[in-house]
Amino acid sequence: MSLDIQVQAAKAERFRQLHRGPGILILANVWDAASARVIEAAGFPAIATSSAGVAYTFGYPDGQLISRDEMLSAISRITRAVDVPVTADMEAGYGSTPRDMRNFADALIIAGAVGLNLEDSGELNGLTEIPKQMEKIRALRAAAAEAGVPLVINARTDALWDETKKPDERFAEAVRRGRAYSEAGADSIFVVGAGDRDTIAAIVREIPAPINILAGPGVPPARELEALGVRRVSVGSGPMRATMTLTRRIAEELRDHGTYSNFTEGVILHADANALFEKSH
Amino acid sequence: MSLDIQVQAAKAERFRQLHRGPGILILANVWDAASARVIEAAGFPAIATSSAGVAYTFGYPDGQLISRDEMLSAISRITRAVDVPVTADMEAGYGSTPRDMRNFADALIIAGAVGLNLEDSGELNGLTEIPKQMEKIRALRAAAAEAGVPLVINARTDALWDETKKPDERFAEAVRRGRAYSEAGADSIFVVGAGDRDTIAAIVREIPAPINILAGPGVPPARELEALGVRRVSVGSGPMRATMTLTRRIAEELRDHGTYSNFTEGVILHADANALFEKSH
Repeated sequence: MSLDIQVQAAKAERFRQLHRGPGILILANVWDAASARVIEAAGFPAIATSSAGVAYTFGYPDGQLISRDEMLSAISRITRAVDVPVTADMEAGYGSTPRDMRNFADALIIAGAVGLNLEDSGELNGLTEIPKQMEKIRALRAAAAEAGVPLVINARTDALWDETKKPDERFAEAVRRGRAYSEAGADSIFVVGAGDRDTIAAIVREIPAPINILAGPGVPPARELEALGVRRVSVGSGPMRATMTLTRRIAEELRDHGTYSNFTEGVILHADANALFEKSH
Repeated sequence: MSLDIQVQAAKAERFRQLHRGPGILILANVWDAASARVIEAAGFPAIATSSAGVAYTFGYPDGQLISRDEMLSAISRITRAVDVPVTADMEAGYGSTPRDMRNFADALIIAGAVGLNLEDSGELNGLTEIPKQMEKIRALRAAAAEAGVPLVINARTDALWDETKKPDERFAEAVRRGRAYSEAGADSIFVVGAGDRDTIAAIVREIPAPINILAGPGVPPARELEALGVRRVSVGSGPMRATMTLTRRIAEELRDHGTYSNFTEGVILHADANALFEKSH
């Protein structure tokens, strides 16, 4: 096994350990090398990407319209820019067969990632069937083991968002899927759409695996999630959309007033921005 | 001449016209397809890139450490995302010979740009010599004409920042260079480091070409620049650095308090962000 692969394997194990406490793992999702360096410099022990955020930087809407290789090129730039472990948000894995997943695991490892989010939406009629999603997870797990990097698989279920099902069926489906994905080899289960304390507590109780919750408006703060037994919280495309909102505010100020306050007051200086990137080159 | 080239040529002429008034041309520099779409949606008639901003998204400090092709790949993604003319900030053009510049003009046109900034710094000992910089501008101008897209050349001089010269010699040098670059075929002259009214007025008086001023802390607002005779104002990496600053604030809030206000309050919703990118695909 090459030294590079050994280093990457150790990084994957370090990242896996971060799900085992004592505190909740907080992931501030990034979309390019700049945001990744800012988050690393703020002291975060790992970096997660946002697939929507990356898609926007390429000019695509969210929803697997970006190609796998465009997404991987962004992941590669991010992993080169930071030293901490990087987990890649990869939608439904840009493929559906075990063979797709084996190729995908290899490509992801080459791009420098040590973990990934794999979601069960993306099919035309509702979610990917459970046995098929389990097969994808098993193929990823096996290919990662073969490549020598034990990728941390965060299996996401969109069951709570599934509009083909009645609201009361969705929770049971999320639990069923969480358990199945864990059994198939996922390290953690990411249940999107869970925002209230009761639902979150029930998910933690019902799924015997580290649980990832998506932060957002109305979701309990990280410390409350921790008290509820949640092991990992991530923020999705929120920070990227916040920077797009700031960009719009800058544009409106320039357009309407011809002034510069939104991009000059309290802003990182050019020299300090440069210094942020000098460490890695 | 292909239809694509005719469309691009018309766009270049439309962009050139924007330098001829009546109002000052305000350019809000971008660094990726997302910021470009936000600026276009805010009604700006053209898009300029920031080379520092693009370099940061790739994890490089400013100063031509990013490769020419990485920079062009970013330009290409930006031009595909918007309909308005795009002018590319290309440092010193990633080359020094007329042949480099001919290849460069072709690559820039393929990437979809209709204009560029070309700067005279980047040499180890001070600025590129005037005859050599004129030769680069002439080669770009000729290659662009041959390719059928009359690129709008914004020749930047860093003479006011040149620490190898005494302060009182710098202004004379900036004027000498501005005149020479205009004579060599530049459409506009970009004098960085000019921030006070007297210097800006003197530059407008002394250089017989449309003048571009860099906005920043202490620089007069766009309408005052317009009254001083400035034809174009751009903002460099300011907006990109502002978004990095916001990202840092988001990270600090998450790290210290585990709360989400900086990326949830007043932020563009996921559906609205997606809608912004649906037009172009």
